Amino acid sequence: MTASSPEAGALEALIEALKRLPGVGQKSAQRMAYHLLQHDRDGARLMAEALRAAAEGIGHCERCHTFSESALCPVCADPERDARQLCVVETPADQAALERTNSYRGYYFVLLGRVSPLDGVGVQQIGAAELLARASEGGVEEVILASSFTAEGEATAHVLAEALRSRGIRATRLARGVPVGSELEYVDLGTIAHALVDRR
Amino acid sequence: MTASSPEAGALEALIEALKRLPGVGQKSAQRMAYHLLQHDRDGARLMAEALRAAAEGIGHCERCHTFSESALCPVCADPERDARQLCVVETPADQAALERTNSYRGYYFVLLGRVSPLDGVGVQQIGAAELLARASEGGVEEVILASSFTAEGEATAHVLAEALRSRGIRATRLARGVPVGSELEYVDLGTIAHALVDRR
Repeated sequence: MTASSPEAGALEALIEALKRLPGVGQKSAQRMAYHLLQHDRDGARLMAEALRAAAEGIGHCERCHTFSESALCPVCADPERDARQLCVVETPADQAALERTNSYRGYYFVLLGRVSPLDGVGVQQIGAAELLARASEGGVEEVILASSFTAEGEATAHVLAEALRSRGIRATRLARGVPVGSELEYVDLGTIAHALVDRR
Repeated sequence: MTASSPEAGALEALIEALKRLPGVGQKSAQRMAYHLLQHDRDGARLMAEALRAAAEGIGHCERCHTFSESALCPVCADPERDARQLCVVETPADQAALERTNSYRGYYFVLLGRVSPLDGVGVQQIGAAELLARASEGGVEEVILASSFTAEGEATAHVLAEALRSRGIRATRLARGVPVGSELEYVDLGTIAHALVDRR
């Protein structure tokens, strides 16, 4: 027990563990730990079980690589989806965001990464070969590149588009433009310039 | 699988469980769940074990009622502390904050609540009888009331002070005043007025 941390043992361990959550520092972790112990022990037990079950039970879909508890994720297992479209995203969270829009009916391919030369992540490390094989399967007419609109995401889209087009597969990119609900005055200039070029 | 939640099963359960943390809503919970699954499965397992151990292993000190894994918390078990002072706080988190200041050497009594007539929490529900018994034990010369400086905390301090003084026990209250590091211009007027009255 030191001056800076009067917590000991299990409480200290819980605070340290909670600090591994993104966006949670010492103060938030303390607040969470004390809250759970004082007001919601059932919640703590439930969370322990949910974390264990998720860490053990959630793997990757063998077809699109998103998180899945079964060999095929619900989207890949759904024969009603449009097999002519394949949407490439960086992460399972991106895939979930697209699903939430309820405006895409094709299949997905999750890269689980993006090209980042500085970190030594090349096009091989993000499963490009697998994507090319998947895109060459009968029925895929268009690959929609939905990687992030960051430098690394753009680089990823660029190299994948090159590779796909060289194999005669049509590759498109999500539209860049002004976000819904925003006032032009506050939108950054690069976005406005893109929206102007891509006007329709 | 609905439009608003493409997550299913263990992932959905994990997101729901994480939402029980204070200050964590749907978006943060999603971010946390995806982060743990994609980048820190060890962290998820560690957190599951820490939550389980804390929920099962942490009880209350039988003397001061703070969180403790043993019958007596480290403070109550320390014979070197000053038995003449007893500091009354609302929660174990308050006790930990006081310990961190490293400027108090007496013992504690944790109320695990505060008087709140609107919620039907009276002075009996916050262990006043036990506090009076504890304060009457040989050696206690001063009870420092360190409940919050909110309406409910002040009410708690008031009723406890009355009860203690009627039994001839000296009761003091933490000083109200200008917080360290603040500029007078931005301090609320009630605080300045109190600091003026309590000047020394």
